[in-house]
This record gives sequence, structure tokens and C-alpha cells, in this order.
Amino acid sequence: MRTYLECIPCFIKQSLEAACMATDDEKIQTEVLKKVMKHLQNISFTNSPPELSREVHQIIKRITESKDPYKKVKGQSNEMAKKQYPYLKKLVTESDDPLLMAIKLSIVGNVIDFGTMNRLNVDDMIDNAVKREFDTSSYSQFKRALEHSETILFLADNTGEIFFDKVLLEELVEKQKQITYVVKANPIINDATVEDAYLAGIDKLATIIDGDSGQKQSAPGMILSYASKEFLDIFESSDMVISKGQGNYEGLSDVDRDVFFMLVVKCPLVAQDIGSEVGKIILKAK
Amino acid sequence: MRTYLECIPCFIKQSLEAACMATDDEKIQTEVLKKVMKHLQNISFTNSPPELSREVHQIIKRITESKDPYKKVKGQSNEMAKKQYPYLKKLVTESDDPLLMAIKLSIVGNVIDFGTMNRLNVDDMIDNAVKREFDTSSYSQFKRALEHSETILFLADNTGEIFFDKVLLEELVEKQKQITYVVKANPIINDATVEDAYLAGIDKLATIIDGDSGQKQSAPGMILSYASKEFLDIFESSDMVISKGQGNYEGLSDVDRDVFFMLVVKCPLVAQDIGSEVGKIILKAK
Repeated sequence: MRTYLECIPCFIKQSLEAACMATDDEKIQTEVLKKVMKHLQNISFTNSPPELSREVHQIIKRITESKDPYKKVKGQSNEMAKKQYPYLKKLVTESDDPLLMAIKLSIVGNVIDFGTMNRLNVDDMIDNAVKREFDTSSYSQFKRALEHSETILFLADNTGEIFFDKVLLEELVEKQKQITYVVKANPIINDATVEDAYLAGIDKLATIIDGDSGQKQSAPGMILSYASKEFLDIFESSDMVISKGQGNYEGLSDVDRDVFFMLVVKCPLVAQDIGSEVGKIILKAK
Repeated sequence: MRTYLECIPCFIKQSLEAACMATDDEKIQTEVLKKVMKHLQNISFTNSPPELSREVHQIIKRITESKDPYKKVKGQSNEMAKKQYPYLKKLVTESDDPLLMAIKLSIVGNVIDFGTMNRLNVDDMIDNAVKREFDTSSYSQFKRALEHSETILFLADNTGEIFFDKVLLEELVEKQKQITYVVKANPIINDATVEDAYLAGIDKLATIIDGDSGQKQSAPGMILSYASKEFLDIFESSDMVISKGQGNYEGLSDVDRDVFFMLVVKCPLVAQDIGSEVGKIILKAK
């Protein structure tokens, strides 16, 4: 997916958010905004949003001298989601269709801003999200693909959310699937890294790799031109690819490969591109 | 009120909005964003938001070659609000406290985006807004000030909203008050100009002036350094000053003069400055 003019105010808003997480010094925060605005004057809109976001966050990290502005928020997200795990597992076990419930929960994990919410609110949000209408038109296609697949490539998105992925991975492992779980090589926004995946115990269920291994800067979504050879080989050879979140969608929506996208639509441009609405939780076959 | 870093993404978002209203040419829209971002790299944060907004919209108008990007939206707002006027009048007439109801409606007029809504939705929104909790702590002070006042300076805000002001102006005229109604000299965002005030029939109730007469660019809020001598004289001599909307609040909040501010809080920074919350409708004595 290309970048639109509407992405610009969002990049700037996120730059300020990240700068404020990295430092309380208003002078440095101002410097971040100025440098980001300067950079955005010369970008190419044919690049995808995660590619530009990668450049923007490179500037933020350099000026704030912070390698990981979202470190605290990510820790809170993991902690909160970890506490939810037994409840998620219960929902799956008690469901008439455990696979569908696990898919739904994995997507729901993409909606919640764990860092800023208390336990009870998260419980409520999960219940509400699970009850919400869900377009199951791609579900039968997903099940058919799953039947014929031995190897699955699973592109993760955020911290916190990885505990919601875990219940889905467990369903897939139960069906004897071999899974490669792809995270980012470096901290970028609140995206999960190898460290987070191990914290969630994903290593017991899947082979964990960083898809952009060797890159000094990660993008908040898979961009094939930055991918490692290892990733590209598995991307090519896997029987099935599951991609979580908007960033991976933006990076892979135009790639010539069957992919099952699972995401919460958070932005009107993605909504338009994918043919849905902001706020919807989506399983979509490409 | 000073400008905060958080205003920057908003300025950029509004620039894009205005550019898209002025032209469908994405090249020109891009040029607007680039020039605005360039300008925002060298601003002083001690200036108030409407002062910077004035500069930003000057750039937008120059690059899009449009004197009034919001012309269509403003026309729709006036048209929709004009249709509401009989209903507003009925609400005031049937109220136990017509003055309070007229104040409330005048503020409610600041909340609705008339341009994009249909008639029934606006009816509902008015009903809901009127039922909403309203901090009346400044109302007794307002009534006391009114009793001792013959002349009132009334700073207007937006098109559409002016029809909601009209019911309040009528209450004030009934109490034999002499009112000066202040609008902008030039089109700026969706703010009301002299032409709009005449369209709403305000000339039958008040003396209409443009507060920044002679200026080539208007700001979306009163900035005394751009005000005309006529305005400054009346601002000085009036028994009472009523100021509508966030823009006028941002411009006048630090001025040494008693003012009754009436506004809908639309931004977290104004909320913090005025000691309230986003979404609240406020009558506040300064």
C-alpha cells in the first residue's frame, strides 16, 4: 500500500508521542518535530507507510538518543496481556469452534492499548470484541488452506498482542503445523521483538526469527526489500502465510503471494484499501 | 494561551483538510503540506494558536490560490442552522429560564459540524446537548454582570453557530442591551464574516463590526495586536464582553479584562488551560 498525504499528520503526531515517551525535555521534543517535518518534505509517496515510519523513527531515536522510546509501554502491554492469557485460553477451550475463537482473539489482541488500561477494562473489551460481528467469509478458505498446509509463516505485530497470538499458535500446533513466528530485529514503536516472543513462551510453539535480521533499523511492518534471506526463503516455501496488523498489511498488500491478513482496521486509508471500515476486526485472504 | 507542541500535528491536519477543500490536485495539496511544515520549523511557541493558524492559512490560501477554501462548508452550515432557528426559538420560549437556555444553545451551536449532518441528526444533537450537564457556576455572575450592563461586546465564532447566537442576542435585546457583534474581516477556516452576520439577520439586533478591520489576513480568534482601533475602543468601554469559541479563548485568555467565555471544549490543551474536559460545554467568567 502506498503512502497518502493523510499519513503525514499521523507521522507527526506519532513522532511527538514517541519523543514525549523518550524525554521530558521540550527542547528535544521540539527538535524531533522540526527534523521530522524537514524529512517529510522530501519523501516519496510510492513507498509504503511502514517504510516511511522506519525513517521517521530513526530520526526520533537519533535526536532523543533513545534506542527504544516505547520500552515502558511495551513492558506494561506484555504484563497486562500475560495476565489475560488464562482467560483467553478458557474462551478458546469453551468455544464451539476453538479455531475461530482463537483467530478472533488473536485479532482482538491487535485492538487493545494494554499499556493504559486496567485489568477489568481489558476483560470487558475482550468480551465486547469477541461478541462483535466478524466477517467470516474468508474463514472457510482459511480452514481449507490450513488442511493442505504443513508449514506456516506467522508475521507478528505488537507486544501484548503476542499473548493473544499464543492461543492461536497452540491451536495450530495441535493440528501438527510447523510454525515460524516472525518478529522485528530492533525495537520499533510497540512492535514485538525476539525478546518479547521468548517472554510469551512462543519458542515452545514455533521457531522464532527476526524477519529483518541484520538491519540496523526495523520498520513497523514487513518490507521485503529489508527482509533477511532466511525470511525470504521461508516466505517463498511456506505452505501458508498469516500476517498480523496494519503495518504488515501495508507492507505486503501488493506482494504477489497468498496471505491471510488478520487485523483491526485503525485508519481510514487502510479501511479504503482493504474494503472495510475503521474499527472492524478482519480475517482477509489475499 | 500559548501554543504547544501538540498543536503542530493539528495545524498540519487542518492544512490538509483546507487544501483538499480548495483543490483536488494532489500536487498542490502536497505543496501546501510541504510549505506549512517548512513554516512550522521556525515558529515561536509564545504566540497563541490563532496567531499561528493565521500564518498557516495564509500559506494555504496562497498556494491553492483560494481566498476561501471553506466557502462551501460555510454555506452548508448557515443553511442547516437557519433551518434550526425556529426550533431553537421554541426551546427558548418554552424554557423555565429562557436566558439560560439561550446561553446553552448559543454554546451548543459551537459543537455541531453542520456541513456534514442531516436535519434529523442535528435535531437529536441539539436535544442531547441541551440535556447534557452544564456547569452553571458562572451563570449567577453572568446575570449580575448583565443587570449592571448597558453595552455588550459579543465576539462571534463560526458560521452556522451565528444562528444559535441569534436566540441569545434576542434575549439580550429584550433586556434593552446595546450589542456590538464582532466577526472576522476576511474568510478564515469556517469563521463567520460580516456577510454571514447579515445573512443571519444579526443587523436587526446588534451593530456588526469586523474586529480586525483593515487586516489582509484574519486569525480564527481575537488577537488584540491585529485588532482595529474601533474594536479596541469598544473592548475597553463595553460594560460586558462575551467571547464565543476556542479561538477567541486562546487569543483572550491572558488579556487583562473581564470576559465571559462560552465554548465547547474541543482540544485537550484548551481543556487543561481552562480547567475542564474535552466535550464539555462551558460558560466561564474570567
